[in-house]
Amino acid sequence: MTRTESNPRGRAGDPHSRVCIIAGGGNLPGAIAEGLANTGLKPFVLMVEGEPDAEAGLERYDHETIALEDAPSLVARLRRRGITHVVMAGEIKRRPRVAAMRPGIGLLRFVPSLIRALAKGDDGLLRFVVEWLEKSGFKVVGAHEIVPDLVAVEGTFGNHSPSEADWRDIKAARIAAEAIGALDIGQGAVAIGGRAIALEGIEGTDAMLERVRDLRDHGRLAGKKRGVLVKCAKPGQEARTDLPSIGPRTVIGAHAAGLAGIAVEAGHSLVLDGPDMIAQANALGLFVIGLPPKDTP
Amino acid sequence: MTRTESNPRGRAGDPHSRVCIIAGGGNLPGAIAEGLANTGLKPFVLMVEGEPDAEAGLERYDHETIALEDAPSLVARLRRRGITHVVMAGEIKRRPRVAAMRPGIGLLRFVPSLIRALAKGDDGLLRFVVEWLEKSGFKVVGAHEIVPDLVAVEGTFGNHSPSEADWRDIKAARIAAEAIGALDIGQGAVAIGGRAIALEGIEGTDAMLERVRDLRDHGRLAGKKRGVLVKCAKPGQEARTDLPSIGPRTVIGAHAAGLAGIAVEAGHSLVLDGPDMIAQANALGLFVIGLPPKDTP
Repeated sequence: MTRTESNPRGRAGDPHSRVCIIAGGGNLPGAIAEGLANTGLKPFVLMVEGEPDAEAGLERYDHETIALEDAPSLVARLRRRGITHVVMAGEIKRRPRVAAMRPGIGLLRFVPSLIRALAKGDDGLLRFVVEWLEKSGFKVVGAHEIVPDLVAVEGTFGNHSPSEADWRDIKAARIAAEAIGALDIGQGAVAIGGRAIALEGIEGTDAMLERVRDLRDHGRLAGKKRGVLVKCAKPGQEARTDLPSIGPRTVIGAHAAGLAGIAVEAGHSLVLDGPDMIAQANALGLFVIGLPPKDTP
Repeated sequence: MTRTESNPRGRAGDPHSRVCIIAGGGNLPGAIAEGLANTGLKPFVLMVEGEPDAEAGLERYDHETIALEDAPSLVARLRRRGITHVVMAGEIKRRPRVAAMRPGIGLLRFVPSLIRALAKGDDGLLRFVVEWLEKSGFKVVGAHEIVPDLVAVEGTFGNHSPSEADWRDIKAARIAAEAIGALDIGQGAVAIGGRAIALEGIEGTDAMLERVRDLRDHGRLAGKKRGVLVKCAKPGQEARTDLPSIGPRTVIGAHAAGLAGIAVEAGHSLVLDGPDMIAQANALGLFVIGLPPKDTP
């Protein structure tokens, strides 16, 4: 995993670069801000109104809030702050009320491609924002490019390793996760007893793990023990959008669901709060491993 | 949909045939019993201990209960009752405690294939039971063979039809349902706004619809309206195992989840309590349609 070389204004770590994190929900924005701060950079956090989790602690950094409906002012606000690099991180659950938006003259020439983008759904919209920011002179980067420490590596992360039966579950869950990823639906699956039994849709990994916990509590898993969670990137996933990520909360959720461990695709997944996550996995007896990546996206 | 022609002891509707329903949970066993009774046949119901729903009303028919651990006595019990045809219907959530089972001499010769079957999981086990019963002289039939009225036909079932946007959802959900069916995971998917957002695992259709309702209640569907549920048979599904089914409860669940309608694969899906289901759909404003089957399994 190397940082981008094609950056017209230098790398994100250069003294003259200034990184803005456009922050949605979840743990990723905080992990990026912390990673940047640890390398001596001072990130600017643009919090999308109503989206960041309170526990993400983003207020401790230089920050502002932007309403979704003020998105047309984004370029001007980033310029005013002297931003060179932008990373978009975290889930944005709300969608803007388009009627309340007033695009400025700078955005107007993008309207035809915006209309095409909207027809393609959320992924299309995201690609539009990336294109708009890049054409406006910012470098849009992925979390893995500016905080490479977050990227999952291959191999065992803690003290525990998968058993032979766990490997059968890993294989079954990975096939399922890749299949739903290919359909652009989700990134995760749980397999128990050699068979995928839960698939992640829009509800997210934590909610899927809660479901597996409930199924087990209600005796719906026919007495089967253990099982694994596998998360994979979507084939050809735009690497500047959120890659699949795991963290301490994933380990706690997997343990509550009675699973034996977690596997992610090395190189295409992020590990948040790594040391904390590994300590949790060791304490709870779960394995966490990075699988060999299937291909380069 | 025609009844089987290769039946060595005549068709299930012949005066000399006697049908046993081995009954698990859900509405299907009751629908089969009612369908048989409506044609003048007197079904014998063998209730798998602890599995049938109380509201299925199976006690109104000639019935007995069998513990999973007494499965080795199955053939003898069916013979004693003069059974000619067997239909296995409904979900069996428990798995037998193998240590508590005492196979008789008749079952012993099947032990090698039982061991192979167990290694293949639940589907393998089911195929083993089918093989054992057939080699013991019973005809194992699917619900669609003995109560053909249950089979979903092509076209619109009630007063409401899908809009153009609904058709996009039907297409997206069908692709997803077929993909997870091909992996032998589940039979259903929900698509909203042209995108599959929930996939059915072991939790079942009703639980998936509850999840979609919760996601919508918590504003997780980004204001998107309508959406559809699609259920498909698994490619090459053993037609004597439960085909995907819908009924009044599915319509109520889909309505609670804010969906516009339900689509199933004609010929390879069952409709339980059809008139009731259509009345519900008409009252709640949902469409229910049978899609052209993709292929003959």
